[in-house]
Amino acid sequence: MSTDPLVLFMPSGKRGHFPVGTPVLEAARSLGVYVESVCGGRATCGRCQIEVQEGRFAKHGITSANEHISAIGPKELRYAEKRELKPGRRLSCSATIEGDLVIDVPQDVQVNAQTIRKDVDTRSIERNPAVHMCYVEVEEPDMHKPLGDLDRLKAALEKDWGYKELQVDAYLLPKLQQILRKEKWGVTAAIHHGEETGRPTLIALWPGLKNEAYGIACDIGSTTIAMHLSSLLSGRTLASAGASNPQIRFGEDLMSRVSYVMMNPDGREAMTLAVREAVNNLVDKVCADGGIAREDILDAVFVGNPIMHHLFLGIDPTELGGAPFALAVSGAMHLKSSDIGLPMNPGTRVYMLPCIAGHVGADAAAATLSEGPHRQDEMMLLVDVGTNAEIVLGNRQRTVAASSPTGPAFEGAEISGGQRAAPGAIERVRIDPDTLEPKFRIIGVEQWSDEPGFAEAASRTGITGICGSAIIEVIAEMYLSGIISEDGVIDGSLAQIQEKCEAVFRPDLRKKNNARSPRITANGRTFSYLLHEGSPRIAITQNDVRAIQLAKAALYAGVKLLMDKLGIDHVDQIRFAGAFGSFIDPKYAMVLGLIPDCELENVKAVGNAAGTGARMALLNRDYRREVEETVGRIEKIETALEPKFQEHFVYAMAIPNKVDPFPKLSAAVKLPERKSDGDGSDGPADGSPRRRSREERAARRNRG
Amino acid sequence: MSTDPLVLFMPSGKRGHFPVGTPVLEAARSLGVYVESVCGGRATCGRCQIEVQEGRFAKHGITSANEHISAIGPKELRYAEKRELKPGRRLSCSATIEGDLVIDVPQDVQVNAQTIRKDVDTRSIERNPAVHMCYVEVEEPDMHKPLGDLDRLKAALEKDWGYKELQVDAYLLPKLQQILRKEKWGVTAAIHHGEETGRPTLIALWPGLKNEAYGIACDIGSTTIAMHLSSLLSGRTLASAGASNPQIRFGEDLMSRVSYVMMNPDGREAMTLAVREAVNNLVDKVCADGGIAREDILDAVFVGNPIMHHLFLGIDPTELGGAPFALAVSGAMHLKSSDIGLPMNPGTRVYMLPCIAGHVGADAAAATLSEGPHRQDEMMLLVDVGTNAEIVLGNRQRTVAASSPTGPAFEGAEISGGQRAAPGAIERVRIDPDTLEPKFRIIGVEQWSDEPGFAEAASRTGITGICGSAIIEVIAEMYLSGIISEDGVIDGSLAQIQEKCEAVFRPDLRKKNNARSPRITANGRTFSYLLHEGSPRIAITQNDVRAIQLAKAALYAGVKLLMDKLGIDHVDQIRFAGAFGSFIDPKYAMVLGLIPDCELENVKAVGNAAGTGARMALLNRDYRREVEETVGRIEKIETALEPKFQEHFVYAMAIPNKVDPFPKLSAAVKLPERKSDGDGSDGPADGSPRRRSREERAARRNRG
Repeated sequence: MSTDPLVLFMPSGKRGHFPVGTPVLEAARSLGVYVESVCGGRATCGRCQIEVQEGRFAKHGITSANEHISAIGPKELRYAEKRELKPGRRLSCSATIEGDLVIDVPQDVQVNAQTIRKDVDTRSIERNPAVHMCYVEVEEPDMHKPLGDLDRLKAALEKDWGYKELQVDAYLLPKLQQILRKEKWGVTAAIHHGEETGRPTLIALWPGLKNEAYGIACDIGSTTIAMHLSSLLSGRTLASAGASNPQIRFGEDLMSRVSYVMMNPDGREAMTLAVREAVNNLVDKVCADGGIAREDILDAVFVGNPIMHHLFLGIDPTELGGAPFALAVSGAMHLKSSDIGLPMNPGTRVYMLPCIAGHVGADAAAATLSEGPHRQDEMMLLVDVGTNAEIVLGNRQRTVAASSPTGPAFEGAEISGGQRAAPGAIERVRIDPDTLEPKFRIIGVEQWSDEPGFAEAASRTGITGICGSAIIEVIAEMYLSGIISEDGVIDGSLAQIQEKCEAVFRPDLRKKNNARSPRITANGRTFSYLLHEGSPRIAITQNDVRAIQLAKAALYAGVKLLMDKLGIDHVDQIRFAGAFGSFIDPKYAMVLGLIPDCELENVKAVGNAAGTGARMALLNRDYRREVEETVGRIEKIETALEPKFQEHFVYAMAIPNKVDPFPKLSAAVKLPERKSDGDGSDGPADGSPRRRSREERAARRNRG
Repeated sequence: MSTDPLVLFMPSGKRGHFPVGTPVLEAARSLGVYVESVCGGRATCGRCQIEVQEGRFAKHGITSANEHISAIGPKELRYAEKRELKPGRRLSCSATIEGDLVIDVPQDVQVNAQTIRKDVDTRSIERNPAVHMCYVEVEEPDMHKPLGDLDRLKAALEKDWGYKELQVDAYLLPKLQQILRKEKWGVTAAIHHGEETGRPTLIALWPGLKNEAYGIACDIGSTTIAMHLSSLLSGRTLASAGASNPQIRFGEDLMSRVSYVMMNPDGREAMTLAVREAVNNLVDKVCADGGIAREDILDAVFVGNPIMHHLFLGIDPTELGGAPFALAVSGAMHLKSSDIGLPMNPGTRVYMLPCIAGHVGADAAAATLSEGPHRQDEMMLLVDVGTNAEIVLGNRQRTVAASSPTGPAFEGAEISGGQRAAPGAIERVRIDPDTLEPKFRIIGVEQWSDEPGFAEAASRTGITGICGSAIIEVIAEMYLSGIISEDGVIDGSLAQIQEKCEAVFRPDLRKKNNARSPRITANGRTFSYLLHEGSPRIAITQNDVRAIQLAKAALYAGVKLLMDKLGIDHVDQIRFAGAFGSFIDPKYAMVLGLIPDCELENVKAVGNAAGTGARMALLNRDYRREVEETVGRIEKIETALEPKFQEHFVYAMAIPNKVDPFPKLSAAVKLPERKSDGDGSDGPADGSPRRRSREERAARRNRG
């Protein structure tokens, strides 16, 4: 065993023996512990700060003490005096190992007077960005060794930082001489690590020490574009901003945008310009909010669904509008920001995550990277609900993905009172199982509708409609309170005023429970449930229920196909990604049978997981390799081609499901008694949902 | 020993045994014999033609016969019928080895009806261009394997052509879908081999079979820009063109252009734009001459002296105007043509050869590549005469380089009757040693001035001045005929009309030979030699002789320093590169002592060797590695820093030289008897040339 001191780095836990006198930074690097350094050990950038954790660490057999690190030297002292070095902090480039140490690498090294406006999420992302800032002092020209300025710069970058066969962005050539001479041959180089090219590239150069570099991570959604600005040197998020996708003016949903391209000769170009302009405006906004210059953004990561991905790259998405749903590009893309009309620094690089399949995009890849089903043993289902639900299911061993054509119902389209999530929209609903009276909340108002002050508060926005999350809730609550059957039929026998009339036509209703509510009214041959009497009048019609049934059945059938593929009958974890997922109550989603049975506590909304994944790929290039490798391994299921889809779909039309038992949900929520026994033996092998409903109704009538 | 058939490829001489049935193309590839193929073995491009050489090749132990190659098959027959296959030619992708063969790989495979307008030189350059054309058939989209179009294209290029981890030019992304679908997923890809990036890159793509690709090679001289257009698939030169460098309007010589940049804020930009515009016009011209489209140019190679190199790249050349003559960039550059304002194909690549030193540019590197001192055992001196002479000396073991400040005298500047080489300029001079009467030729007229018809022919252009090559000749002839001494003094004693007057002041002249000529006339205290009485009157003055002495002494001193460095006292081969070199008669150059003693037959003008080197680097990327490696090994001598320069310079003021014996020249040309014994023992250690001449004159006077 080595008699050299033992050094343990936290939080990574990496450890090793090093000779007395080894700089801590060198020890960290040799263990692969990422500690930032721009100045290359000159004790001027202050990025390489660490802290000694004192004490006896019995588990590791280390007694760590401040005496085991060298006393502060003159260079470090100069930094501490000129800048600011918090008590206990040391510069790891200058401090040397003198005995056993436990070293903490803090994630909050902040060297400039920069204000951190917003922390996107609490997740701390281990850093290893694709762009590194490297200060070097270049040899002056020498007539005896007539190497060019650039060639001597390359030599310095190889000697001090180990970069070999460096490529150079052409735009730098005319600027080199001045930059090199301005601060007496001291320069900071931004080096992009070239996974895609195999060689590192010099992408930007500044005179003297340039001690900041930034990156943006952006999720281009069909509806919303979200962007984060992060420091590549500290990992901190300086600003976040969002904007509507201006392509909405060409079409609300994805398919109407594809149609627009097909119908209009300049449609593709117009939509590309629109989305790029919106992204450019967001760059301006995050720069203003973060107090930085656009030129200091050196790296950018973009994700989006396949159609957004293609339009952003200037690629015609028409092929994605029909079978075989051929992506023009599926692999990860490495570009310059100037290639796609995003002027930042002339050397700024752009990385786009890979798409998984024609309907499972780079956003799903990013969400996968963020939630990491492939990093764990438990079986995780990751769902991003939209016009197309993107579904990923798997664990460390195997991961599968598909999209399901849920249609726009979950987004409030095709629903009589449906609308986007906006102030005034109903977002939560409860129905009293005894009185069948509802209460609800609307976006922008704290109180429930039965609480004092609600009416006054609601008068500011009005009660304008019902948004996606509330549609889920109201239908689930209608089911729980017996207003609709497991087949989704609104029980007309509960209608108060039309009872007699109904009784004439529908003798089956007479045997139902005897609660009666004026909220249940007939619409021709079907019934609806009145949620809010006002202007507009908001009611849940039989058609609304059917639309949600179709949407949730499509989603569930997709999930089931993936479960079949993996040969599993339950999942351990469920993650809802995306804005819609953030507002869904997992309980109601499961009651409705949107998602398979699972411990409720293991169903979580993860917000903009795609944005988080983009930020991970921005801050750590290892995640780029990880997502590329993972997407390469993901097995893609094309739901339209799977013969069992139809069967799963038909069963999933029932609430929560015709055949699946949902034991964990039953343990947590009292579900109405099932009418069918759920063994699936009498399930029809095919048939459209509507046809099947008619058949079932007929069957029940016969039974009745 | 293998019992498989033995196959020998000519002209490379590479040989190997291959199993019966091996396609000839496959055998060639496995031996590293470059045989072009675009269609990848589909017998459609016709590029892979070979010929069987029949007969008994005793030296190789091969009896080669047409029966030893497979009979023409249906695919080959179809090509032969549709296109044209010359008798005896076979497609090596289809023809298989059936017995011992000697295979000739012809260098003139021509598959289109393209006219070859001009062959630049007779040199056949073995091909291995940086851009390869590769036809592939891409798999159609498949919902079960949702790889993108690009990703399937990459897979096809890896499978059929072995290209791994292919990069893609971003401009292609929006075009991919249409190109792939136009000819049913058959496309031709242009792949650039990425020495600079480590990875190959897809730079252009066409539907179907694209059976042509072109490149340009361009030498940007201070005075003239020369360009060649070559087929990358056949190696043929389709067109060549030249143009004046429009930067001349900013300054005749290099240093005046550097001054212009220093004096004018927009000077650099104006000169960059000027040279790029001229290059663009030349591209148009060679495309028109070659009958091809600009977009079909996929690769371009540029060379130039350091100042032209920098200005072309948009780099300020001011640093090159003074010590330490720092190049901004010395290594080879890999760019896109769009980086430097040369619109061709959006994917066109540009390669610039490395510069050797601050005054020894990429043109000298290209000339070195062309003439190849580093490829042979003999010691070769390569000289490119200009305002700065670029000098390379060496052999396989070791190569050194320097520049010498010859000044503009050789270009006709600083010479009283001097002018550029142009119609009407005297280009050849002979002086009758008895009568001291001259005869000459002028550019544009066949006859010598003493031949019938000269006056009439010359009246069209006039006799306008004397160009560089004739200045060398007239001064050498003046020396050979005794008009000037080895010290370069015009012998006033030969002046007819001033004899008496001279005799009074200069008793030393009385002992001279008694030829007398009215052409020798006094100018104040010195004399001149009248070459042509007319308008203008063209005479060689003592100042003219001195200017040439200074220039040639600088060149020779530079050569001597390089010889010192290598420890050699003679050279085996001398090559004059550049336009000036093409017109110099080696004999006169050596009589004057411009170049060291050498067998006259081993002194050759090689024309635009820089252009040839550029063409080599265009047609074979192995030459790029060779020139980069060679330039890396060349030892650079900065003449200004060498203490012995002055001494060599002073000796070299004499004609041919004060101390060097020139035995080979003496054997070929009757030189005047030397006045000094040439042992060098009495040579002054320093002193300016003028001062030394005065001293010598005084010494002679005393002796006299």
